[in-house]
Amino acid sequence: MPTGTDSRYHYERDGATIYRQSFATIRAEADLAHLAADLEHVVVRMIHACGMVDLPADVEASPDVVGAARAALRAGAPVLCDAQMVASGITRRRLPAGNEIVCALGDERVPDLAARLGTTRSAAALELWRDRLAGAVVAVGNAPTALFHLLEMIGAGAPRPAAVLGLPVGFVGAAESKQALADNPFGLAYLVVHGRRGGSAMTVAAVNAIASEEL
Amino acid sequence: MPTGTDSRYHYERDGATIYRQSFATIRAEADLAHLAADLEHVVVRMIHACGMVDLPADVEASPDVVGAARAALRAGAPVLCDAQMVASGITRRRLPAGNEIVCALGDERVPDLAARLGTTRSAAALELWRDRLAGAVVAVGNAPTALFHLLEMIGAGAPRPAAVLGLPVGFVGAAESKQALADNPFGLAYLVVHGRRGGSAMTVAAVNAIASEEL
Repeated sequence: MPTGTDSRYHYERDGATIYRQSFATIRAEADLAHLAADLEHVVVRMIHACGMVDLPADVEASPDVVGAARAALRAGAPVLCDAQMVASGITRRRLPAGNEIVCALGDERVPDLAARLGTTRSAAALELWRDRLAGAVVAVGNAPTALFHLLEMIGAGAPRPAAVLGLPVGFVGAAESKQALADNPFGLAYLVVHGRRGGSAMTVAAVNAIASEEL
Repeated sequence: MPTGTDSRYHYERDGATIYRQSFATIRAEADLAHLAADLEHVVVRMIHACGMVDLPADVEASPDVVGAARAALRAGAPVLCDAQMVASGITRRRLPAGNEIVCALGDERVPDLAARLGTTRSAAALELWRDRLAGAVVAVGNAPTALFHLLEMIGAGAPRPAAVLGLPVGFVGAAESKQALADNPFGLAYLVVHGRRGGSAMTVAAVNAIASEEL
């Protein structure tokens, strides 16, 4: 509370100090021991974005996911996002090769595609990625149906992305779609947060951490 | 898992059914009894955005916040956001008066302002809202320093917004800034999620729920 005639509160105002203290708290409280070093760096950033130190218990990833996604970004791969909030949050200047960030959800063809395919607009929008899928980094931070649709496209012969960050959130299909990604028979590199938690902020944090050169 | 040569998974593909099932699950599992009807509607949407039914235990709001924010939007008030992800997620077509959505973080004057004021860029960006604050709906979904800075501006005589949705996330100052908003001596209408949780998705869900005519 401000005191007397002073309208100032007492809090940390230095961005670098805030980051340092945040990451120190996360490392003190979160159980990160089971994570490989490159994945640990990513999960710390995901915890930072959601405020929950118990997140690592729900994290599962293929051993190659961070390396595969990072290599793809360095090679210029696009980041394909299911939601505009995910696309909006990715820090452009961190991307190593001026990488394109794609979200097709607002494309005018999507409503018709969704009706024709009998699925959600979030899922139908992925059809517009088809010619960019090969070697891409996919970031699904909102819609379980998008993640299921991606697996169906790949199962039916679509090109394979370099890595899939599968972090849809919610109560219908979220847990199931992430389990399906973790169980995928295609050898896809993946990162998931099992259960209902996920979302655009966590997904953006994962992409930004992977894109960053610092470890 | 897909079976045989069929690449299709079994999941709900109808958007309306997904929404209905999601909200039914939330209402079955979450303890919403202590919330007024208009706030309950907002909190259900916030739970939907984060996947966590225990959220209501951390929600605190002034009795007038939903009504005040909704009336402000109907009257054409802008929505002032601390982060681009918040601004990006708000559904334009739900806003009742073509309301302006403002995020000043990317303004070229912000880095200098932050250096001059000795604070973060997220906080300094609020100085660029000053002439729009009167009667606005403020949505802070990322930076605790932005929420503290808002309270300091108002304490020093800046115009008062109609409502403040204070949902910054994280480990340094988030809980404290939200407590300060809840304790504000200015009579501000407010909504907070106490503790470390918060973030852009939850904040966007609150704005979109308030903007919606349906209850």
